Amino acid sequence: MRPTGAMHLGHLFGALGNWVKLQDDYETFYMVADWHAMTTLYDKSSDMTMIKSSSNDMVADWISCGIDTSKSCVFRQSDIPAHSELFLILSMITPLGWLMRCPTYKEQLKEIKNHDLNTFGFLGYPVLQAADILLYKADCVPVGEDQLPHLEITREIARRFNHLYPGAGGKVFPEPKALLTNSPKLLGTDGRKMSKSYDNAVNLGDDEKTAAKKIARMITDPERIHKSDPGHPDVCSVFSYWKAVPGEKNKEIKSACKDASIGCVECKKRLAEEINSLLAPIKERRKKISGDEVNKALEEGAKKAGAAAAETLQSVRKSISI
Amino acid sequence: MRPTGAMHLGHLFGALGNWVKLQDDYETFYMVADWHAMTTLYDKSSDMTMIKSSSNDMVADWISCGIDTSKSCVFRQSDIPAHSELFLILSMITPLGWLMRCPTYKEQLKEIKNHDLNTFGFLGYPVLQAADILLYKADCVPVGEDQLPHLEITREIARRFNHLYPGAGGKVFPEPKALLTNSPKLLGTDGRKMSKSYDNAVNLGDDEKTAAKKIARMITDPERIHKSDPGHPDVCSVFSYWKAVPGEKNKEIKSACKDASIGCVECKKRLAEEINSLLAPIKERRKKISGDEVNKALEEGAKKAGAAAAETLQSVRKSISI
Repeated sequence: MRPTGAMHLGHLFGALGNWVKLQDDYETFYMVADWHAMTTLYDKSSDMTMIKSSSNDMVADWISCGIDTSKSCVFRQSDIPAHSELFLILSMITPLGWLMRCPTYKEQLKEIKNHDLNTFGFLGYPVLQAADILLYKADCVPVGEDQLPHLEITREIARRFNHLYPGAGGKVFPEPKALLTNSPKLLGTDGRKMSKSYDNAVNLGDDEKTAAKKIARMITDPERIHKSDPGHPDVCSVFSYWKAVPGEKNKEIKSACKDASIGCVECKKRLAEEINSLLAPIKERRKKISGDEVNKALEEGAKKAGAAAAETLQSVRKSISI
Repeated sequence: MRPTGAMHLGHLFGALGNWVKLQDDYETFYMVADWHAMTTLYDKSSDMTMIKSSSNDMVADWISCGIDTSKSCVFRQSDIPAHSELFLILSMITPLGWLMRCPTYKEQLKEIKNHDLNTFGFLGYPVLQAADILLYKADCVPVGEDQLPHLEITREIARRFNHLYPGAGGKVFPEPKALLTNSPKLLGTDGRKMSKSYDNAVNLGDDEKTAAKKIARMITDPERIHKSDPGHPDVCSVFSYWKAVPGEKNKEIKSACKDASIGCVECKKRLAEEINSLLAPIKERRKKISGDEVNKALEEGAKKAGAAAAETLQSVRKSISI
């Protein structure tokens, strides 16, 4: 996850909730992708300072959301120089066309206007991701649907490496599979993409009033003009939040909306209550996490990740005879 | 220098002779560029094995040509992972256009047919070179004229980094200057570019007969048909070898050629003698250099280069707040 400012519901529902579950069934590595953050934020020094502070804040948020650093390896990308070495090596074998034709590359070049992304590093984003994943010989990667093209490039790079350098011991890299997150991407409270820069996200650290206010402002089903009109939950972004909330309450809300037994104001009020009670224990835990605890977790993580990375790099160097 | 097979006269006259002189006036770093060799040779595993063996052979050749490892830091690029980290960081700030428009990039894509060079890594060659140079905060880089566009990109990357991340202590990177080698590039004995794959180079390790045979085959001034015709040394590739040979004998040869008092056969015979007497002590020293000596030199070099690189990287990380 890129450390690019305060964490919000999109992170919790889209990734972190899933991460917490996965740590019981898998050996998990969760990475603060600070070098990745640099690919887009390199050109403002205030952004670069923000990456650093966000990195530690983000780890504290992870822990307060339930990431258990005794189960999961939590580490910062830039603490493990092996990422850059594998990036360099994989660069050599990655055809330019794979990167140029990557759909998210073209999309982001068009969408992100406030940074100059015509850089070598931004084009190489999927190569760096491939290094991040392959360095731990990951079997699975929890991703959203938008990240599937990147994961496909990782799989192709792994295949190409294994083909070019068969080595004595067989394939160096497994081809990682996607663990698709169930919950679709939440939109912001204004219906646009959820983003810090649009100020349209409920942050994990928002106090109850702020969260309730943001939710109260949300636009609901535009075809439901009077409270007595039946609603269309499937096109209502408030309902998409209900669906993301754990538990079964969304079923109740769905039928109440459809038969007009609940109005939008009431629905949003109840959603705010729901979300506030979800965030309360997270905020409570968050208060108790010290900077030292985060630093210690990152130190331990760097040790574990560093050892795994060194082992992979050794077999990589052997395969390429360097 | 890229470790891509046996060293030849082109290396000696074009670079190494100069390197030997520089070590008395400068603090010098001479690098075995094995990762660079990979940018073009990645796709054949026999080439990759060759890079490894050439690396050590090349260092032995350097020493036998007069590189003194107590004066110069001699090291292998892949022994210093900091090169890959700085490569990654500089990638972020390097505009794609600088690389796409680099004249040597387009040239090599056209010229080199036996390897698929449409890779991300090959496009990033000048970024890796920039990392190699800037990691040691080099003031000067001894280059041939063909490398000037790359050095210009290094200077622009340094300037851009200093501009984007001014830091507290002023500029992180000096802008390196070119130390142009005087001797122009030697052509091969067949008049084409000197290259191992054309088998048109006199290797430093060639025995006297082999060297003499290669030189005897050389094409001379095509307008000089009879021995009695006056020659044109300035268009004769044999004379370009004479000019590269240290000493003043080329003046004598020049006038003897122009007034037809020496024939081409005799001229080439004398050149072979000259070159063989130049190579004799090099071959003699080369025989005495053990694998252990090379390994020890590289170990020492890695320590010194690693320390310098770590220091630079620390100031880089500080400037970018990562």
